[in-house]
This record gives sequence, C-alpha cells and structure tokens, in this order.
Amino acid sequence: MHNLSVNPERLLDRIRTLGDIGRDAAGRLTRLAASDADKLGREAFVAWAKTASLDVKVDRIGNIFAIWAGEEPGDPLLLGSHLDTVIDAGVLDGCYGVLAGLEVVETLKESGVVPSRPVIVAAFTNEEGTRFAPDMMGSAVFAGTLPLDEALAAVGTDGTILGAELERIGFAGTAAPGFFKPHAYLELHIEQGPILEREATQIGAVAAIQGISWQKIKIRGEANHAGTTPMSMRRDAGHAAARVIDFLHRLAHDTVPDLVANVGCLSLSPNAINVVPGEAVLTVDMRCPKEEGLAAGETRLAGFLEEMRTNGMFSIATERLARTAPVRLDESLVQLVEAAAEDRGLPVRRMASGAGHDAQMLAKIAPAAMIFVPSVGGISHNPREHTEDRDLVAGANVLLGAARAILTAD
Amino acid sequence: MHNLSVNPERLLDRIRTLGDIGRDAAGRLTRLAASDADKLGREAFVAWAKTASLDVKVDRIGNIFAIWAGEEPGDPLLLGSHLDTVIDAGVLDGCYGVLAGLEVVETLKESGVVPSRPVIVAAFTNEEGTRFAPDMMGSAVFAGTLPLDEALAAVGTDGTILGAELERIGFAGTAAPGFFKPHAYLELHIEQGPILEREATQIGAVAAIQGISWQKIKIRGEANHAGTTPMSMRRDAGHAAARVIDFLHRLAHDTVPDLVANVGCLSLSPNAINVVPGEAVLTVDMRCPKEEGLAAGETRLAGFLEEMRTNGMFSIATERLARTAPVRLDESLVQLVEAAAEDRGLPVRRMASGAGHDAQMLAKIAPAAMIFVPSVGGISHNPREHTEDRDLVAGANVLLGAARAILTAD
Repeated sequence: MHNLSVNPERLLDRIRTLGDIGRDAAGRLTRLAASDADKLGREAFVAWAKTASLDVKVDRIGNIFAIWAGEEPGDPLLLGSHLDTVIDAGVLDGCYGVLAGLEVVETLKESGVVPSRPVIVAAFTNEEGTRFAPDMMGSAVFAGTLPLDEALAAVGTDGTILGAELERIGFAGTAAPGFFKPHAYLELHIEQGPILEREATQIGAVAAIQGISWQKIKIRGEANHAGTTPMSMRRDAGHAAARVIDFLHRLAHDTVPDLVANVGCLSLSPNAINVVPGEAVLTVDMRCPKEEGLAAGETRLAGFLEEMRTNGMFSIATERLARTAPVRLDESLVQLVEAAAEDRGLPVRRMASGAGHDAQMLAKIAPAAMIFVPSVGGISHNPREHTEDRDLVAGANVLLGAARAILTAD
Repeated sequence: MHNLSVNPERLLDRIRTLGDIGRDAAGRLTRLAASDADKLGREAFVAWAKTASLDVKVDRIGNIFAIWAGEEPGDPLLLGSHLDTVIDAGVLDGCYGVLAGLEVVETLKESGVVPSRPVIVAAFTNEEGTRFAPDMMGSAVFAGTLPLDEALAAVGTDGTILGAELERIGFAGTAAPGFFKPHAYLELHIEQGPILEREATQIGAVAAIQGISWQKIKIRGEANHAGTTPMSMRRDAGHAAARVIDFLHRLAHDTVPDLVANVGCLSLSPNAINVVPGEAVLTVDMRCPKEEGLAAGETRLAGFLEEMRTNGMFSIATERLARTAPVRLDESLVQLVEAAAEDRGLPVRRMASGAGHDAQMLAKIAPAAMIFVPSVGGISHNPREHTEDRDLVAGANVLLGAARAILTAD
C-alpha cells in the first residue's frame, strides 16, 4: 500500500474550478467571507462532498464539515482549512487545504481503507478577516476562544452583519460550534514565503506558528524651518522614526534569533520638503516562533524608545494593535508529517509559519500540525500566488500519508 | 549725532496697522501676492511714503519704489524687502524691512541729514511665492535674472495670471524693471531661526545666504509578506529610506561644516502594517552657506545611494527639484552693519541666512547685506512669529546707522 496516492487530476481540476468562482469582469478573484461569491464556493465544496457520499453539517458560525463517519466510532481526525479569500487573491490560499482534505478522504475511501475513527474535512468561515474582523474567526469560535454571539455580530467593512450575511447565503447552520472534539487536526497550506523554494525543499513540516506583536508608535518632536534651524537644535521626529526602523532591523537581523520585524506604515507631519518633521507615526509588526524571542523584541524596542524619551527630545506614545502568542504544534504529529514525506522520498524540513492559520486555533483543543508546500517567489495574497502542480500533488500525498498513519495506528 | 534714532512708536504702529490688513473672519493674516489684501497693504505703504513726501514709482512687475531724491545725484542706496505674506502668516516677515526702510528715510530727513545720493525704499512683488512661482519674483525680475514676460505669465494656484492680477489691483506700473542701478542694498529682516535668541544676541550681520539643494529620491525594493520573508531576503525600501535619513543627519551634524539637511516628506508603498515596503519616496532639503559644502553634501549623498544601488538590492531614481548657489554678501557692507551695531552697543554676530531673501537677487547687481533680529522660538510663517519691540527698534536703528554711514562716507 506504500504507493497509495491521491488522484492528481481530480485535485487540480477542483482547485481550478473553485479558483474561477468569484472572478470579476477584469478576471480578479475575490471571495470575501459570507459574500455571494463565498456562497458559490461553499456550494461547490458541498456538492463535491455529497458526490463523495459524505455527510455535510454546518455549524452556527458557518463552518462546513464534510463527514466520513466510517464504521468505527471515536473522536474524528480533522483535515481542513478555509474557502474565503482576500481581495484580488490567488487560487491556493485556503482552498488547497480544503480540497486536498477532501481528496485524501476520497482516495482512502476508494482504496478500501477502513478508518479506525471518523474523518472530517472542515472549511472554516472567514479565515482571512478581510471583510469581517477578527481573522481566523470560524476556527476561533469552533475552538471556543471567540464567543459565537460576538462573531455573529461582527460588522463588515461594507456595514453588513456577519450573522445576517450567513443567513442570506444559506450557511447559518444549526450545529453548535465545537460539536465534536477532534482527535487531531492536519492542515495543508502553501508556505506564503520563500524558504522552501530557496532551499529546493518540497515539504515543510510546520512545528510552530509565529506569535505576532503589532503596535503603532507616535513620535512627537518639533516642526521647524529646515533652513534656519541648526542641526543640533532639531527635534526631528522623522529622524527618530528612521532610527527606530534601523534599530528594529538590526535587532531582528543580528540580535534576537528567529525574530522578524517590519515597519510597513510611516507618515510624517507636516510632510513638507522644507519643514523638519514634527511628528511621525509608524507601525511595527514583529513575529517570532518563540515567546521569549517575541517578548525580547518588544522589551528591546521599548527600551530604545525609552532612551529617546529620556533624552528629553521626544514624546513617544505606543498603542498595541494586536498580540498573539507563538503556537507550538504537536511534536508527534510533526514527526508523523516528516515520516510521511520521507516515506515518499520527498525532501522535508521543519519550519515555523510566518502567517496565522486556523491550525493555531485548533491547536488549543487538539493535537495539530501543518504541512507546507513551496510558494513560487514567496508570493501570496496576490494573483501571482503559485505553486507547481507536482508540489501541490506531493503535499496532498503527504497529507494522505499522515492521515493514513493516524487512521491505521490506533 | 551718535544718538540719532528712529521713531519707535511710528515704526511699531505701522507694523501693527499693516499687520491688520488682510485678516479673515477668524483673524488669520494672509496677503498673497497681487491679491485684494496685497492691494490694500501696498496702498497703505504708498500713502505713508507720500505723507513723507517721497516720490513713488511702480515698475512693470509691480515692485514699489519710494524715492527720496535728495539734492545729490548718483546711484541710489536701496533699502527694502516685501509686503506679501504666506497663508496664516505673522506680521513681520517682509513688512518689517519695508517699514523700517521707510522709517530710516523719514528719520534721516527729519534730522536734517543731507544724503550724498538718493535713497529708495523698495517693496518687492511676490517674495513668498505662495500664490505664484517662483518666489523672490519681483527682485529677480529687477535684477534681470528672471524675464519680465515669464514672470507676468505666471499662473497662480487659483488659476489667475499674475500680469492680469497686477492690472486688477492697480499695481502694473510703467517703469522698466532695473530702471536704476543701486549703489548698495540693505535688507532688515527677522531671523526666522533660533540662533540669535539662543545666543542672546540682538543683531545678526548676515554675511551669506545659504545655497539650497532640493531633490526627490525614489527607492524601489520588493514588497513582501512581513511574517514569512526572512530578514536576510528582504529588500525593504522603508529601511533603505531610514538609512538615507540617518546618513544625511550624520553628514550634516558631524561631517560637512555648516551643512543642514532635512527629509521632510516620506511615503511608503504599499503602506500596510504587514507588508515589507516595496517603494519609498522621500525629499531631501540641503542648505549650506558655502558652495563647496553644498556640493560635498550632494556628492556624499550620491555616493551613499550608489552603494545601495550596486549592492544590487535597490533601484534608486533621483530628481532635482531646486538648486541655488550660496550667495556671499558684500564684505564691506557686512562690516558696516557690524560697526553700526557696535556703535550702539548692541551685541552682534555674523551669520548665514537659512532662508532665501530678495537680497540674494539684489546681490547679483549691487553690493548687498542683511541685518537680522531675533525670532522668538525661531518661529516664522506662522501667527506665532514674534520679535520683541526693543529688538525691532534696535534692528531699525542699526539699519539707520549703516545707511547713514553710506550716505555720509561718499
């Protein structure tokens, strides 16, 4: 049975078909959570699941579960990801994991495998958070970390209410979120980063999901005439911001292992060529797979800002925008993924996920792991998002191997 | 005759009166060049000049000349500045120099001084350049460095044509620009910077006007996911911009004497918290009283950008926005200003002007110098622009002393 493999054509065809649902006249793909396009995407998934003789249940936050009950009772093995997209998206982010989960179940069924427990394929609601905040919403409600009522009351960027939108598209289900406890959760996803491609490695065994620390920093100095104010008398908030940016880069590049840091937004006031900037507002995005690294980044940055403050030159206010702790995935599951890759002769490496995923919510209630495949150019959230077909198939086969190991090991 | 002094009340009253012309309902002062408010300000100056029995001539670019012909022929001594303001201005920038020139002439006349040559007080058109570009327009046309037709055809920010606006307000004169050659030009002005106040010095003898180098720099790197792209693989245009800012500060602060540098405008693209900036656009304003210093600043910056380019990491385009050479004022006139200050026991220091002034245009056709008085807080182009009355009077008395020295030395 070593050569049990998914059906590549079926998987790739479905990815293409789903990727054509929600395109506008210009060909741009957008399937925001609980939109008309999302409804069509969900309906396609449900239709494929029913064709495969799976039971379909929808819970109150709109998560869809395609259930292969099998012969044996027990906590189900859960495979999944999400179907919603960002604006002007690629076809793989989320969809790949859901459709590969379905493909794995169909392959197992067709091959006559008798699973030791039920297998469920999940499509979680609103992972992207583009229309409704927060992101990873459906999996957070399922895992019990976000109250259902609060999530249903979320107001969209277009002024709509998520609960009403789910009703409208026919996906306000009746099952209670968390109506079953997963035995384990496996999520297959594109890397969305450049590491696997750069290292010519086909499979990433994701052992951790980075914690995220977002803050906004407002630096106040003094606006002044750029010609008449001596350098030594300037309190240039733009220069202060530049020093923060350079500090963060050195910190992440040289000092704290595995920390990444980004200043993505920066604005100066009054923003005039001949006026020394009196105020600068910048954002900081720090991520690290280890809590001690993320905390060290935050502490070092705070110390650097404190020095600027106590120099008496700047008044500095910081505002926390987001903070999630790093998530360590389940060691046995990670090893199982590595073994499944090695079993097929696929190069594999351990890595951390730089982006957030439903798996980090599921990790709160069950052993969870993720499988990554290479993203060409590291690009995602973009029409140029791409993974070679052979890598998509390889990833699905690793998911198949890991699932099969779980279902036959019990 | 050592104690010959201006009439402080007359000078300060006129400054206040002129400062109330052009205020809106909210009390904001704005007298843009060739506007209705400018017309009223010009008419007030002309009325005062006529009351002092001076002849008034207006040239074709609208410069006003109040002429004390005296008994002796010869190239006139020219005193002056401008009457137009920026938006939401203070009352001193420009007006102080014009009204002090008039005050000096009246004081000399009243004291029975017989001048060795004519004395003329000029109010130059559109020094600020707020409504019509370029700035220092009237003095540039007078000095022959800007063609009259080009200046008259200037289109305002409100779509108007300067020539038509001068006709409309009754100040399109008939005298040819440059209809006389000044023997010397003296301009009294507020410092618009903090140096005199900081050093508790009442008088600045301005020996040079800084050259100005403006450029725009566009840095292209690569936009990338802020969570999934390792630090070593980022081509962060925002970090590159930060390094340029810090480089310029060190260059001006530590390396090139008398250079000042400012990055006043900066924008990042795509300007999203979780995306590594792919593009940064920034402006550079460098000024120096010495050409070799300004050129050194430009060369060092170009070298720094070249390094970034040849690292292969960034594509960088620069665009020159403005470039004026530093202007060295007339050494004998500067010494004469110093002597006039010392003669009255006023602390005086040599300095360079960080801002542009009509004097730099006049310096092309005649010996020219400037006198500065302290600006409280270094503030100008702002309703909080302020100079203490005693300093305003002291400055006018130094202008009086210098003018008198010129008029009796011949």
